[in-house]
Amino acid sequence: MNVHGIPYRTIWLKQNDPCTVMIIDQRKLPHQFVVEEIQTLEQMKIAIKDMHLRGAGLIGAAAAYGMYLATLEINDFVNFQNELSEAADLLKKTRPTAVNLAWAVDQQLDRLSKATSLEELQSIALKTASDIADEDVENCRKIGEHGLPLIETISRQKNGATVNILTHCNAGWLAFVDHGTATSPIYAAHEKGIDVHVWVDETRPRNQGASLTAWELGMHGVPHTIITDNTGGHLMQHGMVDLVIVGSDRTTSTGDVANKIGTYLKALAAKDNNIPFYAAVPMSSFDWEMEDGVSQIEIEERDPEEVAFIEGLCEGEIKKVQLIPAGSPAKNFGFDVTPARLVTGIITERGFCEANKKSILEVFPEKK
Amino acid sequence: MNVHGIPYRTIWLKQNDPCTVMIIDQRKLPHQFVVEEIQTLEQMKIAIKDMHLRGAGLIGAAAAYGMYLATLEINDFVNFQNELSEAADLLKKTRPTAVNLAWAVDQQLDRLSKATSLEELQSIALKTASDIADEDVENCRKIGEHGLPLIETISRQKNGATVNILTHCNAGWLAFVDHGTATSPIYAAHEKGIDVHVWVDETRPRNQGASLTAWELGMHGVPHTIITDNTGGHLMQHGMVDLVIVGSDRTTSTGDVANKIGTYLKALAAKDNNIPFYAAVPMSSFDWEMEDGVSQIEIEERDPEEVAFIEGLCEGEIKKVQLIPAGSPAKNFGFDVTPARLVTGIITERGFCEANKKSILEVFPEKK
Repeated sequence: MNVHGIPYRTIWLKQNDPCTVMIIDQRKLPHQFVVEEIQTLEQMKIAIKDMHLRGAGLIGAAAAYGMYLATLEINDFVNFQNELSEAADLLKKTRPTAVNLAWAVDQQLDRLSKATSLEELQSIALKTASDIADEDVENCRKIGEHGLPLIETISRQKNGATVNILTHCNAGWLAFVDHGTATSPIYAAHEKGIDVHVWVDETRPRNQGASLTAWELGMHGVPHTIITDNTGGHLMQHGMVDLVIVGSDRTTSTGDVANKIGTYLKALAAKDNNIPFYAAVPMSSFDWEMEDGVSQIEIEERDPEEVAFIEGLCEGEIKKVQLIPAGSPAKNFGFDVTPARLVTGIITERGFCEANKKSILEVFPEKK
Repeated sequence: MNVHGIPYRTIWLKQNDPCTVMIIDQRKLPHQFVVEEIQTLEQMKIAIKDMHLRGAGLIGAAAAYGMYLATLEINDFVNFQNELSEAADLLKKTRPTAVNLAWAVDQQLDRLSKATSLEELQSIALKTASDIADEDVENCRKIGEHGLPLIETISRQKNGATVNILTHCNAGWLAFVDHGTATSPIYAAHEKGIDVHVWVDETRPRNQGASLTAWELGMHGVPHTIITDNTGGHLMQHGMVDLVIVGSDRTTSTGDVANKIGTYLKALAAKDNNIPFYAAVPMSSFDWEMEDGVSQIEIEERDPEEVAFIEGLCEGEIKKVQLIPAGSPAKNFGFDVTPARLVTGIITERGFCEANKKSILEVFPEKK
């Protein structure tokens, strides 16, 4: 999507330098638009682990490019399997909850196992990374296509009045390679001239909503308003939300949706106020083994410092301030699970399905 | 309660100077413990409006002391009714949602109407303010007494294992004159040696949980952990919360509870996980006229800057940082309403009642 009027993806190869991967350092957003050059596996590991980049699809593409960078570091083709499997382990450990990451790394391992020379290894790795990125863009675009009718219908019901959509965290193009998942139907509706307005949950503790979703919507010209995570229930009680669309880091085959912590609370409020609650989920974010999200999905516990401190712009510089008393402990769970019973439907790149095993498997029959 | 081992109230007269009211400037907490001297009606107006102090009970006591300071500014007894009614209007406009404020001001107007001289006016005003503060302390203490059995019962059911209590915002002693409402049963349980632990919602946008509740619990030695407002649902899904206790800024005669924005979301999660959800409400926070909180209670919309900026400690100084993109608007609703159907019970200074008109009026029969 556009940044200052110029179309961008979130990850790309540097022009005239195929050994350098370019990413947007999302930690500097929304105050500074910084493009970072990544030239080693170690740099990519840090970029993923320390969240220079984040988001289901982008983490997958970044891990795929990380494996490509790993192939550039192999000097001896004889031992390449060992080195690749070490690189794969390293990358997989950076974000344990991200199912796309393991998927992308395994795609690379699978395709790379056929290489017969170092040159071939590197070219297969680059092609695979590039394919994964392109596929992510295409999947996101299709999610927009399949989600668009949900917004169009409400717009018609409201005789063209503004459709108010609430979203949590960033499942926008910054979380993928382009378009995003939760935002893709919104961008598609905006493109089609439908009057949309987005309520953006700030999404504590890392504020991906206020920092990233608001920034990307603003840069692309989509009307939006930032609210605290506490606000959605009140808005829904008073008719100020027409639908909720969120992304997902992991969705079970039964339709339980793991997403950024706090999503479950919004789903409860949507249910309580008869507001449709949709998850936009590419096939790669489904976990086909799991049947019960609340008991089975491992929830990443992150550094409590993310709760205790926050960064923001102060006199032109990005500064970190302490929010809590010196002696008080904090806890930081990264995700929660919204049970399928609260999910009106799931928007995938293949089409729309209900949040139950039967409906999901109708859309993905090969997983039966 | 204790601050660095010394017992404090939140508002008191300066020793040897009955024309100076002392308050804790809560805007500096939790990083600095600053006591502010208030000597004029105008200073008290600013202290209430700009939230040097806040919280249902404390706002009431502060408004009562504000009326007392107003009497000190009257030079001509003949016109005292006019001047008092101007002072009353000024104070009532500072925080429109706070029912205790209007109540305390009206108490003063009522008692002051009997004054026959300027000296009597001032002494009645001081006595009234002091009575209102003492009554607040006693009411809060009784709420602790009536709420304690709820915690004791859970402690027994858990064979003495830690009782985990979630609270939102600050309905602690800092919000009243002492003890607090939601915290009063917690302090009472802690005093009695019951093993309690408090999950403190940080409570965006003003972070009263992280700044005030955590600070006061820490100062008094009560175990607690700060979490983002997004976290409670996940904790409840996983058995990490035994009960929820919140305060209330206004509760209808039918048991609908208006409290800090986000309370409704926690009540929904408590209901969904069969966890008891209690509101601690002194009689002065009931609105006896209202029957439907969601449609009738006016929700204060505050400055969006409170969402856009946050203050914290940075290199020893309190600094304000900007959290959102320059071009993005924000909205800031101060409260939400939790419908009575989600409220397990209400703890008052008179005893415990269910969240319905019949049960509430049994406890307050004079309101029938």
